[in-house]
Amino acid sequence: MRSQPAGIALIGAGRMARVHAKTIGAVGGRLVIVFDLVESAAASLATDTGALVAHNIEEALHHPDVAAVLVVTSSNTHVDCIIQAVEAGKVVMCEKPLAPNLSDARRCVDALGFRASDVFLAFNRRFDPGHAALKNAIDAGEIGNLEQLTITSRDPHPPPLDYIPNSGGLFRDMMIHDFDLTRWILGEEPVSIYSRGSCLVDPQIGKLGDIDTACVTMVTQSGKQAVILNSQRAVYGYDQRIEAFGRTGMLISDNPTATGVKRYSSKSFGAPDRLRAFYMERYGDSYRIEIETFLRTVVEGTPPPVNAIDGLRAAYLAEAAAASLRLGKPIELKPNCEMTWNG
Amino acid sequence: MRSQPAGIALIGAGRMARVHAKTIGAVGGRLVIVFDLVESAAASLATDTGALVAHNIEEALHHPDVAAVLVVTSSNTHVDCIIQAVEAGKVVMCEKPLAPNLSDARRCVDALGFRASDVFLAFNRRFDPGHAALKNAIDAGEIGNLEQLTITSRDPHPPPLDYIPNSGGLFRDMMIHDFDLTRWILGEEPVSIYSRGSCLVDPQIGKLGDIDTACVTMVTQSGKQAVILNSQRAVYGYDQRIEAFGRTGMLISDNPTATGVKRYSSKSFGAPDRLRAFYMERYGDSYRIEIETFLRTVVEGTPPPVNAIDGLRAAYLAEAAAASLRLGKPIELKPNCEMTWNG
Amino acid sequence: MRSQPAGIALIGAGRMARVHAKTIGAVGGRLVIVFDLVESAAASLATDTGALVAHNIEEALHHPDVAAVLVVTSSNTHVDCIIQAVEAGKVVMCEKPLAPNLSDARRCVDALGFRASDVFLAFNRRFDPGHAALKNAIDAGEIGNLEQLTITSRDPHPPPLDYIPNSGGLFRDMMIHDFDLTRWILGEEPVSIYSRGSCLVDPQIGKLGDIDTACVTMVTQSGKQAVILNSQRAVYGYDQRIEAFGRTGMLISDNPTATGVKRYSSKSFGAPDRLRAFYMERYGDSYRIEIETFLRTVVEGTPPPVNAIDGLRAAYLAEAAAASLRLGKPIELKPNCEMTWNG
Amino acid sequence: MRSQPAGIALIGAGRMARVHAKTIGAVGGRLVIVFDLVESAAASLATDTGALVAHNIEEALHHPDVAAVLVVTSSNTHVDCIIQAVEAGKVVMCEKPLAPNLSDARRCVDALGFRASDVFLAFNRRFDPGHAALKNAIDAGEIGNLEQLTITSRDPHPPPLDYIPNSGGLFRDMMIHDFDLTRWILGEEPVSIYSRGSCLVDPQIGKLGDIDTACVTMVTQSGKQAVILNSQRAVYGYDQRIEAFGRTGMLISDNPTATGVKRYSSKSFGAPDRLRAFYMERYGDSYRIEIETFLRTVVEGTPPPVNAIDGLRAAYLAEAAAASLRLGKPIELKPNCEMTWNG
Repeated sequence: MRSQPAGIALIGAGRMARVHAKTIGAVGGRLVIVFDLVESAAASLATDTGALVAHNIEEALHHPDVAAVLVVTSSNTHVDCIIQAVEAGKVVMCEKPLAPNLSDARRCVDALGFRASDVFLAFNRRFDPGHAALKNAIDAGEIGNLEQLTITSRDPHPPPLDYIPNSGGLFRDMMIHDFDLTRWILGEEPVSIYSRGSCLVDPQIGKLGDIDTACVTMVTQSGKQAVILNSQRAVYGYDQRIEAFGRTGMLISDNPTATGVKRYSSKSFGAPDRLRAFYMERYGDSYRIEIETFLRTVVEGTPPPVNAIDGLRAAYLAEAAAASLRLGKPIELKPNCEMTWNG
Repeated sequence: MRSQPAGIALIGAGRMARVHAKTIGAVGGRLVIVFDLVESAAASLATDTGALVAHNIEEALHHPDVAAVLVVTSSNTHVDCIIQAVEAGKVVMCEKPLAPNLSDARRCVDALGFRASDVFLAFNRRFDPGHAALKNAIDAGEIGNLEQLTITSRDPHPPPLDYIPNSGGLFRDMMIHDFDLTRWILGEEPVSIYSRGSCLVDPQIGKLGDIDTACVTMVTQSGKQAVILNSQRAVYGYDQRIEAFGRTGMLISDNPTATGVKRYSSKSFGAPDRLRAFYMERYGDSYRIEIETFLRTVVEGTPPPVNAIDGLRAAYLAEAAAASLRLGKPIELKPNCEMTWNG
Repeated sequence: MRSQPAGIALIGAGRMARVHAKTIGAVGGRLVIVFDLVESAAASLATDTGALVAHNIEEALHHPDVAAVLVVTSSNTHVDCIIQAVEAGKVVMCEKPLAPNLSDARRCVDALGFRASDVFLAFNRRFDPGHAALKNAIDAGEIGNLEQLTITSRDPHPPPLDYIPNSGGLFRDMMIHDFDLTRWILGEEPVSIYSRGSCLVDPQIGKLGDIDTACVTMVTQSGKQAVILNSQRAVYGYDQRIEAFGRTGMLISDNPTATGVKRYSSKSFGAPDRLRAFYMERYGDSYRIEIETFLRTVVEGTPPPVNAIDGLRAAYLAEAAAASLRLGKPIELKPNCEMTWNG
Repeated sequence: MRSQPAGIALIGAGRMARVHAKTIGAVGGRLVIVFDLVESAAASLATDTGALVAHNIEEALHHPDVAAVLVVTSSNTHVDCIIQAVEAGKVVMCEKPLAPNLSDARRCVDALGFRASDVFLAFNRRFDPGHAALKNAIDAGEIGNLEQLTITSRDPHPPPLDYIPNSGGLFRDMMIHDFDLTRWILGEEPVSIYSRGSCLVDPQIGKLGDIDTACVTMVTQSGKQAVILNSQRAVYGYDQRIEAFGRTGMLISDNPTATGVKRYSSKSFGAPDRLRAFYMERYGDSYRIEIETFLRTVVEGTPPPVNAIDGLRAAYLAEAAAASLRLGKPIELKPNCEMTWNG
C-alpha cells in the first residue's frame, strides 16, 4: 500500500520502548535507530531489531532515514525530548504523560506553540477496541446527549513502594488516563472537580504521602456529570470499565475476558473466564493500534487524534484533583488551564 | 373482574396437589372439595385451605359448587379419573403424564373422543415465562423458519432408586416434558426418532433396567431437526435450556439465576448467582400461570392450550424412543400414533 | 406453623396500601381493619379483602384483634400516625420516608424515644433478593473490608410534573432509598457528603426548582467511598444496581431480566431479555419479603431490621445533599444528625 | 531463545498460504522458499515476504536451508505433497483435510507407515484459546468423567454454489473440523454414528446433491454421547460453540464477542457486541498458535499434537456420516477405520 515504510527513531530503550519497537515492524514501519542514556539498553534493543544505535540524541534525530520520532523515556525528560524532536523537523509521538507536572506540561505547550497539536500523545486507552467502539457509538448519536459518565479503573496491585515517591501521586500517574478518557468521551471540558482519596490498600503508601483509593467528580457547563473511581488493588484482575449514560440509551465498555469459556460446577453457574491480568495483556491491542495510527499520520501527514494540548489538559485535571483533595473543596476549572487555587 | 370464582374439586392430596391448592386461592379460584384415597391427606389439606373433604370421588365430582376438576393423583389412575370427571360434565385438568404408557394414553383419548381436546393436560413447562417468550417470538416470526431445535434438560440428581421400577423409565417419566416441548415448539410432528441411552450416573439405575443419560434425535417432514439431551445429574443445579435456530435468528431460553448478583474474586470474574435448585423453584412461576390459565378456560369456556391429545402424542414419542433404544435403529413415526415397531 | 395469624390494621388505602393488603393474606397474616381519610377508598379495599372499615383512626388502632399497624398514608402524615400507633401499644410499620423533611423526622424520633428502634421503616430495597444477597456476602466477609460503593438508580421516566412541587425534591424523594442502602451496606456512617445536580431530562423540572440528574459522593471516617448516581429517565427501563468493591473481591447486584431468553439476529448477538419496567415489577419480591419480615417481628416480638432511626439518618443525608448542592461545597456530617450548614 | 530460526518451504501460494506465510516470520520462523503450480502466485508471495521462488516442488523440498515443509495446496494434492516432503526427510505440516476422501486418506497413512504420526495436520480449532482451555480443563479433571458433548458449528453463509460439487459435501468439508474436535475432546473413539441432513438454507444446494443443515450423534464404548449440529447459514455470524457436560461440572466454550461493549436502549438491555464474522476473524489466534506450535515441534524435534492418523480418523467419521445419511440407519464404527457399510 505504502511505497516506503516510515523510518522511526526511538528515544528510550526500556520495557515500553521494546513493546513499541516490536510493533513498529509488525505493522509496516521501520525502526531505524535507537537512543538511550543507558547505551547497553539501546545496543541490546538495536541488536534484537536490526536497528542502529545512536550515541547521542542528535544522532538519532538527524539520521537521514528518520521521518518520525517516538519518545519513550522517563516522564521527566519527555518535554525536552519532544521539543528537540519537533525542532529537528520530525513527526513526534510521546508516551503519556506529557510531563510529570502541570508546569512542565505548560512549558512544553508554550514552547511548541501551534505545533503542540501536531505532537501525538500516547494515551493508548483511546485506541482500545471496546473504549473506541463506545466513543464511536456516542459520536454516532446512539445514546443521544451524554448525561452521566462513570469510569472505573483499578490496578491488580499497587506499584512497588520505591516507585511512589517519584510518581507524582495517584492523580498524576494513574488517574491521568481516566482524565483523558473523561475529556474525550464527554466532548466538553469539565468546569469543576471534586476529589476524595483514601489509603486503604497499603498504609505504607499513605506514609509516602500518596493515596491508593480515589473518587473524583467532575461537571461540565451543560450539566454532564462524570465520576472516576480508582483503586490500586483489585484481586480479580485489571478492572477497566466505562459506562456512558445518555438521553436515549447507555453504553458500557466492560472488561473483556481471556476466552469465551464458561464454567459450571457445584459452586459455579456459568462463570466467565478470568479478566486480563494487567495493562500489557488488557491493552495490548490498543498499543498496536496506537502505533498503526501514528505511522498513518506520519505517512499521510494528518494531525494526530490526541496531542500535546490533550496532555496539558489531562495534567491540569490531575493538578486540580490534587488541590481539591488537599483543600477539601471543589475546584473551579478554567478553559485556559489557569490555577484557581492556592497552596 | 369476575363475578364468581370458579369452584374446583381437587382429586389427590399429595405434594403437587398442595402446590396447586395453594395457588388456586391466590389467583382467584376457590377450592371447594378435596378427595384422596388416603383420607387423612385429604383432611389435612382441607383444613389448611378451608375446603371440604370428599369421602369418595363421586362426592367431589358432583358437589354443586364444583365447576372444574383438577386431577393430581398417581399416574396410573389419571385415565380413570379424567374419564369420570369428564362424564360428570366438569372442566378437567390433569397433571402430566396423561398415562403411564402409550396404550393407556390411547385408551383415554379413545374413550374421550372429541372431548379429548377439552381436557387440559398440565405440561407446565409450556407456561414457563422464558420458554413461552421463546415460543411467542417464534410464532411472531422473529427467527423465520425454525431449522434446528436443541433441548437440554438435566436434573440435579437422580430420583430415589425405589422410584425407578414403577417410573416407566427415563423416556416416559423425565423426557416426556421435552417431547411435549419439542412438538409445541416445532409446530410440526416428527416423522422419525432415534435414541441413545447410557447409564453413567449410577450403575444401580442400569441394574434396574433404566438409563440415566440420553440423547434423542427427531426430524420432521420438512426437514427440521430436533435434539433432546437428558441427564439425571447435574452438580450445578437444574439445567433447563432450549435453543431454537432459524432462518433469520436464534432464540435461547437459558437458565435463570437466583438473583442478578455477580461475584468477582481472585477465582471468580463476574460469576453469576446460582441456578434454581429443582423444579419447584425453577418452574414455580409456570405452575402458577398454568393454574391461572386453567381457571380462565373454566370461566371463559375456551379450549385448553394443551390437551389430552398432546398427552397421547408425547407418550407416543416416549414409546418410540424406548423402542429405538431397544432395537438400535431409528423408528418411523406415524400421524395416528401407530406403532411401527415390534418387540 | 403459627397458631394464630397476626391481626393487622392498615392506615391508608391507596395504591401501595392495596399491594401490602394483598400480601398480608398471602404470607399468613390477617388484615383486620382499614382506615383512610377517603372513606370510599377504605370501603373498597375492605370489600376486596374481607376486612372491616374504620371510621376514624382510633377505631382501627384499638380494634381488639389488631396486634400491628401498617402506615401507608401520604408522607406528611407518617409521623403523627406512627406516634399514635405506638402510643396505642401496637407494633408499627411505616412506608418510607419516615417524614417529608429532616425536622419532622427528628420530631418523630424525639417523640418516640427508645421506642424509635421498634418502628419498622419500610425501606423495601433492603429486602430485594439481589441486594440482600450482596449485603449478606459482605457480612460473611466475602470481599473483606469494603472500600468503594457505587449505587446506580435510575427511574424509567420522571414523575408527573404536578407531583414535583410537593415531593421534597429528588434527594428527599428518590435518592432517600439510596441513602438508606448506602448506610446499610457501608456499615459505617458517612462523615462528609458532596452533591451535584443537573436538569437534563426535562427543563420543566428545573423551572419547578428541582433537578432530575444527580451525583453524590460520601466518605466515612475509615475512608470508605460511596457514590450514588440518580437519573429520572432511563429509556431501557428501571436501572437499579449496586457495586461493592473490597479488599478481597467485588460484588455487583445487577438488574435482573424479565426472563432468561437471549436473542440472536443480524443485529443482536445474545441480547438479554428486557429489564423489569418499574418498581412494582422490579421490587415485587422485596415488598412481599418485607411484609413477611414484619409479620415475623410481630409474632416473635423481635426488633425490626430497619427502624425509625434509620429513617431519620436517611433524611439527614438527603437534607445535607440538598445543602451541598445549594452551597456548592461538601458538607460535614455529624453522628447526631446535627445541621452543620446554614441557608 | 533459539539460535537459528527454522527454515520453512511453503507449498502453495493461495489465500491460506499467505496467512501462514505472514505468521511464520511474526512468530520467529523463516520462510525460505515458495512453490505453487501457478508460478505468478508463488512469485508474488515471495516478493512480499523476501522468500525465494521454487520452479518445481523438488527445488523447494531440497533447499539446504529448509528444515520443514508446510503444505497448503488444494485438498486433492495433499497426500502426494506430504509423501514427497516426508521422503525428502523434512518435518511436515499439512492443511486440513488430510485428503478429499477416506481412500486417499488411508493411502496416505499406509504410505507413511510409522511416520504418519510425525506429520502435523492443521486442525486449527484445537489451537483456539477457548476450545483449548475447555480441553485443558477436562484433562485437569475439572468436570470429572465427560458424559455429553455438544458441538454447534454454523457458518455465516453457505459457500458459493460452484464450490459445492468438488467440496466432498458438508460432512467431509465442513463437519470434518467437528469430527476432529469430537475425537479430541472425548478422548475415546466413537463406536457408532447416526446422521441426519436437510436442505433448508438454499434449495440449489440440494439440487447439487448436498445438504446444508445436519445433525450427527455418536456414542463411545463407555457410553459417552456426542452431538454435532451444523448449518451453513447463521445470520448472527459465525457460531462456534462447544459444551462438555460431565460428572462434576460443565464447560462451555462460547462465541467470543468483538469487544466487551454492551448496549442499552429502549430495545436493548445489555446486548453484547457482535460475534466475529467468519473463520479468519474468529480463529485468527488459532492459526497463529498452530504455526507457533509447528515451529516448536520443528526446533525441538517433538511429535505434533495432531497428526495424519487424526486426519484419517476424521475422514472415516465423515465417510460413515455420509453413509448413515444415505442408508437411513446408524453405522457401526471400527477401531481400524474399516468400512462396515455398503453402497
